[in-house]
Amino acid sequence: MRDSESLGTVAIKGVGLIGGSIGMALRARGLATRVVGLGRDESKLRRAVELGAIDEFTTDPASAYSRADCVVVCTPVGSIVEDVVECFKYARSQAMVTDAGSVKGTIVSGVLGSAGRDAERFVGAHPIAGSERGGVEFSRRDLFENRVCVLTPTDPVCKDSLQRARAFWRGLGCSIVETTPERHDELLASGSHLPHVIAAALAASIPIEAIPLTAGAFRDGTRVAASSAELWTGIFQANREPLLKAIARYEAELTSFVRALESNQEVEIKNWWLRAQQRLSTSRAESNPTVNVDA
Amino acid sequence: MRDSESLGTVAIKGVGLIGGSIGMALRARGLATRVVGLGRDESKLRRAVELGAIDEFTTDPASAYSRADCVVVCTPVGSIVEDVVECFKYARSQAMVTDAGSVKGTIVSGVLGSAGRDAERFVGAHPIAGSERGGVEFSRRDLFENRVCVLTPTDPVCKDSLQRARAFWRGLGCSIVETTPERHDELLASGSHLPHVIAAALAASIPIEAIPLTAGAFRDGTRVAASSAELWTGIFQANREPLLKAIARYEAELTSFVRALESNQEVEIKNWWLRAQQRLSTSRAESNPTVNVDA
Repeated sequence: MRDSESLGTVAIKGVGLIGGSIGMALRARGLATRVVGLGRDESKLRRAVELGAIDEFTTDPASAYSRADCVVVCTPVGSIVEDVVECFKYARSQAMVTDAGSVKGTIVSGVLGSAGRDAERFVGAHPIAGSERGGVEFSRRDLFENRVCVLTPTDPVCKDSLQRARAFWRGLGCSIVETTPERHDELLASGSHLPHVIAAALAASIPIEAIPLTAGAFRDGTRVAASSAELWTGIFQANREPLLKAIARYEAELTSFVRALESNQEVEIKNWWLRAQQRLSTSRAESNPTVNVDA
Repeated sequence: MRDSESLGTVAIKGVGLIGGSIGMALRARGLATRVVGLGRDESKLRRAVELGAIDEFTTDPASAYSRADCVVVCTPVGSIVEDVVECFKYARSQAMVTDAGSVKGTIVSGVLGSAGRDAERFVGAHPIAGSERGGVEFSRRDLFENRVCVLTPTDPVCKDSLQRARAFWRGLGCSIVETTPERHDELLASGSHLPHVIAAALAASIPIEAIPLTAGAFRDGTRVAASSAELWTGIFQANREPLLKAIARYEAELTSFVRALESNQEVEIKNWWLRAQQRLSTSRAESNPTVNVDA
């Protein structure tokens, strides 16, 4: 399949921030012939139509999946496996199925374990974009532009589905990175899940009286602590081991700062700070991530 | 002195981001008859004139201070005491002297200990505004608009100087909060210095390969780690004990998250997250900080 071909009818399961933004981008870019939203709450789905996120909606899985050429599951990570399995009950034999979950190991192995041969049409995906504000009201057609989407194809994936998943996410404006589910989860534990944990820990630790005297450092440092408790509890639990390791690495860095400050060693404090800065600039200078890039 | 009176000739010692922004605001708002920049590096001072941050410059302390009605010292925290003491060697007997240091305890006690009777004309101040990008090039005339400026007047401060310091900072667009130097340092340790430390610890802990897969959470969470190593080493050292306490409080929060995640307790993880969120919203709802507000 060439990238310029239509994706046909796309079914989006879960039309919140991510699902709604996918729908808006598909419609704005003319990538699909029809965008169907599938969910449980009719009033939210109706709102998604009003906002231009989807062409139509249904609460009936059979109705949505039986006519879809592509399906993207945008529900919370704890629901994705069962949603994908349900999709395969009704989907056409040629349909490509992908998801947008922030964790990949548990999802991909769950689908492999439950979907039988259908699993070859599932391509795990994680478009790295979002907001601390959930819901279709905050959807944006440009949410995925110039963002990375990680695909985690595993052994039984058929070539056709993989090519269509690449075309799907690339069509939304993403550049594609491919790696294993396990590697994805390790990297995202450090780069996304840890920053969420420390934002909340900062919020939790500040004395109420100090907040009126805060400025940009505190505001930016706690921004993502406003994210949904349900969503993030699910992500943390689905990525427990890699996240615990990332936190341990982070705590070790914090401890080396504390040691330097306790002993009041100017040079050590400064070098600690400079080392952190250098890591940021080194990494910005590296144009190629070490994972496999398909672009 | 009424707030609408001219501040007269203002000398700014140290024309970087903060000093430059003060000069721009004074000039844009017509608050001073003359804004004189004092520093050591002529090329930087010349650039400050070009950028409209100051009317003129000198590298001679006597020349700047002997004609100033107000002096604001905007050098790094480790230099402020000696700069204030030097200022008193040349300043007029009526001149009001203030500073913009991010730490107040060591500075105020240093001035009290070194300046003799002149200390009554010094009003410690901390306008809570800044940027991770230093230097006069990044100065902005609106940097202080709608920001809080903390004043830490101590016993020998004369009424006239205090009123003029209030008028000075209020004139730049700040609302004024007054408290003790020690209380300031405790509150800022949690609300500003700690967020800087954890931003750098996050930057230091991330594997290089994970950075291409980061998005807003990591970017915002590490933004202030780009701040000057020299400036921040000085701030951390000048506020060691309160900062160590703030870090310990923060580490305890992080540890309680780790315990909940280790035992995979969904309810505990979620409640930890909700408690952090609640702290942010509670504090936003509180309109009055518990410190004394003069507004």
